[in-house]
Amino acid sequence: MTDEHKIIRDSIHGDIKVEGIFLDLLATPELQRLYNVKQLGLAHLVFPGAHHTRLEHSLGTYHMALRSAELLGLDRNETEIVTCAALLHDIGHGPFSHTLEALLRDSLDVDHVELTEKLIFGEYKIFDDREKEFISFQSVHEILKKNSIDEKKIANIIKGEKKDKPFLSQLLDSAIDVDQLDYLIRDAYYTGVAYGMIDIERFLQTLVIHSDNLVVKRKGVGVVENILMARALMYSSIYFHKTVRIAELMLSKAIELIPDAEPFDFFKMTDSELVNDLKRRGVFQQKIATCLKYRKLYKQAYAADHSNLNEQQRDIVKKLDNSKFRKRKEQEFEDTLNILPGHIIIDVPYKELHQSEPRIDQTDIMILDEYKIKKLDEFTPIASAIRSRPIPDWMIMIVTDEKHRTTVADKAEKILFN
Amino acid sequence: MTDEHKIIRDSIHGDIKVEGIFLDLLATPELQRLYNVKQLGLAHLVFPGAHHTRLEHSLGTYHMALRSAELLGLDRNETEIVTCAALLHDIGHGPFSHTLEALLRDSLDVDHVELTEKLIFGEYKIFDDREKEFISFQSVHEILKKNSIDEKKIANIIKGEKKDKPFLSQLLDSAIDVDQLDYLIRDAYYTGVAYGMIDIERFLQTLVIHSDNLVVKRKGVGVVENILMARALMYSSIYFHKTVRIAELMLSKAIELIPDAEPFDFFKMTDSELVNDLKRRGVFQQKIATCLKYRKLYKQAYAADHSNLNEQQRDIVKKLDNSKFRKRKEQEFEDTLNILPGHIIIDVPYKELHQSEPRIDQTDIMILDEYKIKKLDEFTPIASAIRSRPIPDWMIMIVTDEKHRTTVADKAEKILFN
Amino acid sequence: MTDEHKIIRDSIHGDIKVEGIFLDLLATPELQRLYNVKQLGLAHLVFPGAHHTRLEHSLGTYHMALRSAELLGLDRNETEIVTCAALLHDIGHGPFSHTLEALLRDSLDVDHVELTEKLIFGEYKIFDDREKEFISFQSVHEILKKNSIDEKKIANIIKGEKKDKPFLSQLLDSAIDVDQLDYLIRDAYYTGVAYGMIDIERFLQTLVIHSDNLVVKRKGVGVVENILMARALMYSSIYFHKTVRIAELMLSKAIELIPDAEPFDFFKMTDSELVNDLKRRGVFQQKIATCLKYRKLYKQAYAADHSNLNEQQRDIVKKLDNSKFRKRKEQEFEDTLNILPGHIIIDVPYKELHQSEPRIDQTDIMILDEYKIKKLDEFTPIASAIRSRPIPDWMIMIVTDEKHRTTVADKAEKILFN
Amino acid sequence: MTDEHKIIRDSIHGDIKVEGIFLDLLATPELQRLYNVKQLGLAHLVFPGAHHTRLEHSLGTYHMALRSAELLGLDRNETEIVTCAALLHDIGHGPFSHTLEALLRDSLDVDHVELTEKLIFGEYKIFDDREKEFISFQSVHEILKKNSIDEKKIANIIKGEKKDKPFLSQLLDSAIDVDQLDYLIRDAYYTGVAYGMIDIERFLQTLVIHSDNLVVKRKGVGVVENILMARALMYSSIYFHKTVRIAELMLSKAIELIPDAEPFDFFKMTDSELVNDLKRRGVFQQKIATCLKYRKLYKQAYAADHSNLNEQQRDIVKKLDNSKFRKRKEQEFEDTLNILPGHIIIDVPYKELHQSEPRIDQTDIMILDEYKIKKLDEFTPIASAIRSRPIPDWMIMIVTDEKHRTTVADKAEKILFN
Repeated sequence: MTDEHKIIRDSIHGDIKVEGIFLDLLATPELQRLYNVKQLGLAHLVFPGAHHTRLEHSLGTYHMALRSAELLGLDRNETEIVTCAALLHDIGHGPFSHTLEALLRDSLDVDHVELTEKLIFGEYKIFDDREKEFISFQSVHEILKKNSIDEKKIANIIKGEKKDKPFLSQLLDSAIDVDQLDYLIRDAYYTGVAYGMIDIERFLQTLVIHSDNLVVKRKGVGVVENILMARALMYSSIYFHKTVRIAELMLSKAIELIPDAEPFDFFKMTDSELVNDLKRRGVFQQKIATCLKYRKLYKQAYAADHSNLNEQQRDIVKKLDNSKFRKRKEQEFEDTLNILPGHIIIDVPYKELHQSEPRIDQTDIMILDEYKIKKLDEFTPIASAIRSRPIPDWMIMIVTDEKHRTTVADKAEKILFN
Repeated sequence: MTDEHKIIRDSIHGDIKVEGIFLDLLATPELQRLYNVKQLGLAHLVFPGAHHTRLEHSLGTYHMALRSAELLGLDRNETEIVTCAALLHDIGHGPFSHTLEALLRDSLDVDHVELTEKLIFGEYKIFDDREKEFISFQSVHEILKKNSIDEKKIANIIKGEKKDKPFLSQLLDSAIDVDQLDYLIRDAYYTGVAYGMIDIERFLQTLVIHSDNLVVKRKGVGVVENILMARALMYSSIYFHKTVRIAELMLSKAIELIPDAEPFDFFKMTDSELVNDLKRRGVFQQKIATCLKYRKLYKQAYAADHSNLNEQQRDIVKKLDNSKFRKRKEQEFEDTLNILPGHIIIDVPYKELHQSEPRIDQTDIMILDEYKIKKLDEFTPIASAIRSRPIPDWMIMIVTDEKHRTTVADKAEKILFN
Repeated sequence: MTDEHKIIRDSIHGDIKVEGIFLDLLATPELQRLYNVKQLGLAHLVFPGAHHTRLEHSLGTYHMALRSAELLGLDRNETEIVTCAALLHDIGHGPFSHTLEALLRDSLDVDHVELTEKLIFGEYKIFDDREKEFISFQSVHEILKKNSIDEKKIANIIKGEKKDKPFLSQLLDSAIDVDQLDYLIRDAYYTGVAYGMIDIERFLQTLVIHSDNLVVKRKGVGVVENILMARALMYSSIYFHKTVRIAELMLSKAIELIPDAEPFDFFKMTDSELVNDLKRRGVFQQKIATCLKYRKLYKQAYAADHSNLNEQQRDIVKKLDNSKFRKRKEQEFEDTLNILPGHIIIDVPYKELHQSEPRIDQTDIMILDEYKIKKLDEFTPIASAIRSRPIPDWMIMIVTDEKHRTTVADKAEKILFN
Repeated sequence: MTDEHKIIRDSIHGDIKVEGIFLDLLATPELQRLYNVKQLGLAHLVFPGAHHTRLEHSLGTYHMALRSAELLGLDRNETEIVTCAALLHDIGHGPFSHTLEALLRDSLDVDHVELTEKLIFGEYKIFDDREKEFISFQSVHEILKKNSIDEKKIANIIKGEKKDKPFLSQLLDSAIDVDQLDYLIRDAYYTGVAYGMIDIERFLQTLVIHSDNLVVKRKGVGVVENILMARALMYSSIYFHKTVRIAELMLSKAIELIPDAEPFDFFKMTDSELVNDLKRRGVFQQKIATCLKYRKLYKQAYAADHSNLNEQQRDIVKKLDNSKFRKRKEQEFEDTLNILPGHIIIDVPYKELHQSEPRIDQTDIMILDEYKIKKLDEFTPIASAIRSRPIPDWMIMIVTDEKHRTTVADKAEKILFN
C-alpha cells in the first residue's frame, strides 16, 4: 500500500481525497479503463456536454459513501468495505455503459453486476495479452487479496444482498442510495438539465441506522420527495430521450448483427475500441460506425403509447419483449418492405428500463417518525404517483433510416399487429 | 437551407438556438467530427471531468458572437459573417486539439488556423473515401457557396485580419474575445477549477464600437482585469499543468517517431481514431497507446525555472526551442544512458505556449474614457503585471519513464549543459 | 418620461435593464418603499440569508414578464400593460409581506391585492404628510395617467381577471406564472434551500398562446411537474416552517392586541417602522418587539395533524378557522391557566395558507398536444398527488412562551376539545 | 452549556452545525443584534440583494475557522479559542457596519474592534434597561466566564496581536484570512457581482503552519493571486461604488449634525433603530431619513482623481483628510453658495479606506517553497500590482442635493483650491 495521498478535483464534489488502498485500486486497469467509458452512452449526441465517464462517477460514489460513513458513524471496517464497494461497483460496465446491456444479457445471460463480481474475484481479466507486454499492473483482485479485504462482502454489497448488515448494501443499492445520487447530480451537471440538482447534504443529514437498516428521519420526507421526482424527470428527459435511444439502438443492432461475435470480447473494450472494432467488421457495422461518428441517425417511423393502443395491440407489444419474436417482426418488416437487414429496429423500452435500473420506480423508503418505522406513503402521495408515472413517451417505437421512413410509417401498424 | 430550428442545451449558456444555414453547417462532417475531439487534449487524465469537445466550444462561441452582435447592433450581414466565423473557427483542429500542434507545425509548417482556411475554401476534405460510400454530406465549403456567403471574409476573421471592419475580427480574435471567453468558462466548468468563472454578461455590456474598432467602456476596466487574471490562472493551473503536459508530450513523441508518417493524415482523425491508429504502428507507439489508456505516465526527472539557471544555461535552453537541436539532445541522453528511443523527452514550453495561444499575454485593450481612447495600462497596473507573470513553473523539464527517472535526474544537468 | 436607462444587477436574473416609464415607476414612493419590506416576513430568524425584499421580487417579476412577452411575441401595447402589472403587482403589501395579512383581512376585509388596486387608482397614498415636506415624488397613479396607460387593465391583470385577453393575466396569475417562478427561485437562493431552483428558460420556451389562453406544449410536461413539486416543497420547508410561523404569529398577536389600532395605518409602514411603532405601544407590544429583536420565540406546546385527531376533534379544528371562536378559545386557555393576554396563540394554518396563496394547489395547466388542449392530469399522476399533499405538518398548533409550555402542553387537548 | 446542536442553513457554506458553547453564544443579545445590522451598510440601494447581515457573516467566519482548524490539525483548545474569536469578531459593529465608523472614530476615538473587546470583557452592554424588563439573557462575557474561556486570548486574536501563537490571529486577521474570505464570497453572492467567487476549499488546502506562522504552500500561489484580485475588484465595484458611498455620506452627515449626540448611544442600535431615531431628531435628520427611505440621493457635483490634480491641489486634498479642515471647507461652500447646513459633503475616501480595511493592500503572504519561506513577490508580479492599484475612482468628490448640483459644480474648484 502506498503511503501518499492524492487530491482529485471533481466538478461535482470539489476536492476528493484518495489515499492508501484506494490509491492502489484507482491505479488498476479495471478502474483506469473507466476513463474511457462514457457514463451516458451516446447521450452526447443530444446533450453535447455529456462526455463524462464511469471513472468520475465511481470516484464520486466513493466520496459520497465515505461522507455517509462519517455521518452515520460506521466503524473502520464497515467504512472500508462500503467505500471499496462504492469505488468498484461499476468496473464490470461494458463500453457505452448501459447501451449494450440488453443485448449482452440476451446473448450471454450476464450483466454488468455479475461481471463486476467476476473481476473482483479474479475470474475475468481486463488486460489483453498485447497490453501486458508493455506495462504491468496489479488487478483489483490482487490488491484486495494483498490487503486481506473480504471480496465476498464487497461483492455482496454491490449485488445488493441485504443479509448481515443490510445498511451497508442499502447505502449503495436501495430506493435512494449514493450511487443514484451521484449519477443524478453528475448527469444534470454535464447535460445542463437542472432536474437532477439535489441537495445531497440535506439528504445525508437525515439518514440514520435503525435496527441495522438505513432509514430516513421524518424531517427528510421533503428531500426524499425531491429526489424521487428528480430521478423520474431525469429518466424522461435524458436517459429515455427519443434521439439518444435511437442512437443506442443503432449501435446495439450493429453488434447484434456481427455473425459470430464473442460477446465477452466486447465487455472489456473502451468506447473507442468498440467503435474502431466495428470499422473492421462487415459493411453494416462500418456503416453504423460512420453514421454515429457524423450523427446521421435513424428516424422514428412509428410510435405509440398506452393510450394509442387497444388491448389486443398491447398484448402484441408485450410479446415483443421477447427478443426472438422481436427479431422475427423486424425481419418481417425487412422482407415485406424490401429493406436491408439492420435498417429496421423495433423498440419496446419498458422491460429494459427495469432491467437496467431496477430502482427506477422503487419508493420503498423507511421513515423514522419518533422511534417508529413507517412507510413513505403514509406521509406523501408523491411516492405512489411516481410509481405510476410513465417514463418513456412510447410503449413501442419503430426506427429506420431516413429513406425508408415514410414506407415504414405507412405499413407499421399493419405489419406489427397483423 | 432548412426551415426549422433546433434548441441545443449547453451546460454553460443554457439553450442555444440554431437555425437556417447554421443548422446546415452544424450537420457537416467538419463540425460533426468535432464531437470527437476533446477541447483539452489529455487534461482529463488530471481533471477527470475534462472530456468536453470542440463541438460544444464551437457552439458556445457561435452563441456568444450572436449575443455580442445583438448588443453591438451589427447589421444582418455583419452578424452572419461573424457568427459563421465563430461556428467554424476550430474545424481545422487535429485530434486532441492543441496537443499535436507543435509537432505538426514543425513537420508541415501548417497550423489549425490554416487548415481551417483550407476547409472553408474546399481545398481539403474531412471524409475519407470509405465513409463516403455510406453516407452523403454537404461540406462547409459547399454550404457557404450555395448560400453565397463570402468565404474570404470568414477566413479573414478567423485569421484575425484587421482590415475593412476590424471590429468583426476583434470580436473573435483579440486580446479578449468571445473565443477565449467561451473556453475559459467552459474549461472552468468541466475541470471544476473556478478561476475561469467570468461574468460574461457584464463584459459584453461594456463593449462598444468606436471608429470601427471594438473597445471597452471605462466602467469595464474591472471586468477586463478579472478576465486577464482568470486567463493567466487557467494557463498555470490547467493548460500547463505538469502532468497534463507530460501526457501530451508522450503522445506527441509517439507520433513523431512514426517512421514515414504523412502528417496530413493525422489532422482529420478523431481522438479515438488516432489512438487506435497508434496500436497498428510500431512497438513504441503501441506502448504509448497502452500507457495513455491506463494512465501510466512518464515522470519528471529534471526541471528548472528562470531563477535556477545561470545565463549560459538559459542560452542553451533558448537554443532548445529549435526542434532539431532538441532531438539531438534527447538522443544524447538516450545514447549516454542507454535508453530506448522515445523514452526521454525534453520540454521547453515557452515558445509553444506563445504559438498555441498568441493571445496569452496580450493586454492591449482599448478603453473608451469619455470619448477618448486610452490604453488599459493608464487605468491599472494589473495589465502590465500579467504580461510579466510566468506561466509554466518550468523553463525546461525532462521527462522519462519511471525506471529511468533517477538515472536521468542524476545526469540531467551534465548532459544538458555540457 | 426620462430618456435614460439603468442596469440593475440582480442576484437571480443578472442584469435587469429598466428604461422609460419603468424608470419613473421605479422611482415612486410606492415601489421604493418595497426596499424596506422583506419578501419572507420573519423567515430570516430561521434562514439567516432571507432578508431579500419585495423590491427585488417586483423587479424580477417585471424582468420575467418582459422576457415572456418577447418569447410569446406580444405586441407593444400588450407588453407594456403586462410588464407594468408585473412591476406593480405587490405595491399593496404591508410590512413583513404575508405575515399580517390574515389579521388585516379579518379586521379590514381587505387584502394586498385590493390595496394595490387602490394605489394604482390613486385612492390611497403611501406618503405621510411629514415626508411630503422633505421630498416630492410622483405617485404610480400620476405616472400611469401622464403616460395614458390604462389603469383598469393593469388592475385587472393583477387581480387575475380573465376576460378580454386571458393570456395576459395568466402570465402573472395562474397555476404557474412569472410571479411564482420569480419568488420560488429567489427564495431558494436567499434561504439556501435548493428546492426552488427551477429551469425557468426551459419553462418559458414551452409556453404558447392558444385561443387567447396561455398553454404549455406537451414537451413542457416535465418542467411543469418539476415546478409544481418545487412549489410544494418550498411551502413545507420555508413558508410553513414551524419556527417561522411562530415568529409571525407573535407579531400578528402584538398588532391584534393594540387597543384601538387603525389597521390602515399599518399597511403603508415599512418593516422597521412597524417594529419601532410597537415599542411606543403597550407593554405587550414592547415585549414582543424585544423578543423578535433578540429571537426569543414562543415554543410549540401542542400540535396535531390529521392522523392524530378523531372526527369530532377535526370538527372543532375546523371551527377554529373562525377568528372569533379562536380568540375565545385562546382566552379560555388564558383564564384557565392564569396566563397573561397574548401569551397563548392557536394556529390553524390551512385556511390562511389558501388565502395567502390561492395558487398553492392549483395544477390546472392546459397542455397543447398536437393541436389539442388536454389537462395536465392526462399526462402525469404527479399533478393530482400534489393537490392532495399536506403542506404544514400540523392542522392545529398551540404556541406559548417558554415558561408556560409544559402547563399548556398538559391541558391542551382538554381545553381545546372539551 | 446546552447539550443539543442546531443545523443552520447558510446560503454560502450549506449546513453549519452549531453546538455547545457556540449555541449559547449565538443566543446572546450581542450576536442576535447582528441579525439587524446589514453587512454592507446602504449598498442595497445600488445592489438590491445586499440585505445580508453581520450575523450570517459571523456564522460563516466561525464555520470557516472551524474547517481550517480541522485541516491544520489544531488542538481542542486552539480550536475553541479561534472559533470563539471568529464568531465574536464583529459584535462591536455599529448600525450599518462600516458606514459610521469614520465619524465615530473621529468623535470617540474608538472603533468596532475596541468595542468588541469591551463587550468581551463585559465593560459595555448591548441591552438597554427597558429591554431587560422583558427578557433575560446571558451576555457574551458571562458565557465566556462561566466556561472558563480566556477572554484575553480571544480579544488578542480579534485585535490581530501576533504574540504567542501567531497562526491563530493570522487565521482571522492577516493579508488573507477567513474573515475576508467569508465576506468576499458572501458579498459576491448577495450583490450578484461574481468577482468575489473564490475557491475557498482550494485555498484552505494549501495552508500550513510553519514555525508557528500560517503560510501558504507554493502550489497555492495561484489561488492567492486569485483572492487578492477578487478583493481589489470587490472594493472598486461594491464597497467604493460611487452611489453607495453617497448614501453613506448622507447618513453620516445626519448623525454628525445632531447637536449634542452621545456617540456611544449609536453603537448599540440596530439599523432600523438608528433610522427611526433620526426621525425624532431635527429637521435635517428627518429629511435625510426620508431621502434614504425613498432613495432620493445627493448627486456628485465634482470629482477628481490623481491625474486630474496638480501638486498643489493634491496637497489640499491631503489636508482634507483632517475632519476639522474638511468641515470648514464644507461650511465655506455653504456660506459662499447660500446652501443650508448638511447639503454639501466633501469626500476624500483614501484615509478611510485604509482605516476601515487595513488589509486592503496587504499582500505580505509567506510562501513555503520546499522548506523555505519566501515572499509572494518572488513568485508573481501580481501582488505588487495590486498594492499600487487605485480603488475608488476619485481622490476627492463633492456631493450635494439635486438642486444645488450645477452651482456647486461651477464653483467647486474655485472654493476648494482657493
